[in-house]
Amino acid sequence: MATTCKQSTLDLAALARNDRPEGLLEGFVLRELPGGQLFSTPGSHRDEVFVVRSGKLRVYLAGENRELSLSFLEPGDIFTTHTPTYIETVTLAELWVMDTETFAYRLARDPSATPEMMRVLGRMLNDAVYLIEDLAFREVPARLARFLLGLAERRGKSHTNGWLIALDLGTEDIASLLGSTRQTVSSLINQWERSGILQRQGRHSVLLIKCDILASLCQ
Amino acid sequence: MATTCKQSTLDLAALARNDRPEGLLEGFVLRELPGGQLFSTPGSHRDEVFVVRSGKLRVYLAGENRELSLSFLEPGDIFTTHTPTYIETVTLAELWVMDTETFAYRLARDPSATPEMMRVLGRMLNDAVYLIEDLAFREVPARLARFLLGLAERRGKSHTNGWLIALDLGTEDIASLLGSTRQTVSSLINQWERSGILQRQGRHSVLLIKCDILASLCQ
Repeated sequence: MATTCKQSTLDLAALARNDRPEGLLEGFVLRELPGGQLFSTPGSHRDEVFVVRSGKLRVYLAGENRELSLSFLEPGDIFTTHTPTYIETVTLAELWVMDTETFAYRLARDPSATPEMMRVLGRMLNDAVYLIEDLAFREVPARLARFLLGLAERRGKSHTNGWLIALDLGTEDIASLLGSTRQTVSSLINQWERSGILQRQGRHSVLLIKCDILASLCQ
Repeated sequence: MATTCKQSTLDLAALARNDRPEGLLEGFVLRELPGGQLFSTPGSHRDEVFVVRSGKLRVYLAGENRELSLSFLEPGDIFTTHTPTYIETVTLAELWVMDTETFAYRLARDPSATPEMMRVLGRMLNDAVYLIEDLAFREVPARLARFLLGLAERRGKSHTNGWLIALDLGTEDIASLLGSTRQTVSSLINQWERSGILQRQGRHSVLLIKCDILASLCQ
């Protein structure tokens, strides 16, 4: 929805650079945070709207052993603590902060900030969609390549043309772990066989020929 | 950002129910689409804003062999064709449609629709974040359970207490396919062993004891 925002005349970045909270930012409080500090978590009860005055923040999701960056916030960006994401400062950052309820009343009288909020939300949505595509679709070849190289490294046998690995799993077993389908895994392996990257040897062995290409696919 | 929108007085659902395009919808054209029709694709050049008058639409992402539903649009929801998603009608649907450029000029003069647009964008972002968490974090146990049951079905040996499967892969190999870490996979298997769902038998075999619980984890 980015195109709908071009008409906006509110320059939130310029407004945020002022020393005092003026105009739409009247009543906002300035907070300075060191780099690497967690500003908001999904479970927190705090419900605030903030505008970045300086510095950079990272919006991310976290599982038990893994973090996924969703987006970055920069000067002039407006966002809220009330999302299912983590927000942390990357660098020293200054934020103009106001509680959401007060801001909502303000917004009802003066909606000039909404295009800016939409711009940031729209960007987040785009970033999220690309992350989903990476996870669901594009990561499959990378994870399969990493898996094959891992097997070669841990249990591969040296061979004139590369590394021979025993692979007792069927494509359906591999697909179930990848969250993909047998067809996708099959066509990927066929494609790699045609490109001379690997060669199936009978039903239970694979010869990895071009490990450097597999390694480049892992990124 | 949903809470910031409660102050909005624009009832887009009621406005959309009118027979003629009035108020903010002046100039919008009514389109009727049958159920199951693709309305927008990520690559399309069309750039339109639309408001759902009746029916239901699905917003989704698609890979080679798999679709992922992101969100659903219902009467009163405003959205755009200019996103990296597919949009299709689930049921017979009526949409008020306008090209984005014209709508942007309208919005600059009368920003009353922006809270509604923010509400939908915010909901999409929430849906996207949950989808990412599912894919990246929550799907791991489901895929691992599905993998183990698949092995039992295809190559398991019947055993007094369940199904015995040969598993030549290390936790690191499994983790690389799952897009997870060795620690996560280990702790998951330990947890299932403590719950009596499975039992490791030496280094290369696993006895699946409670297949019904594993099956319930696949959903």
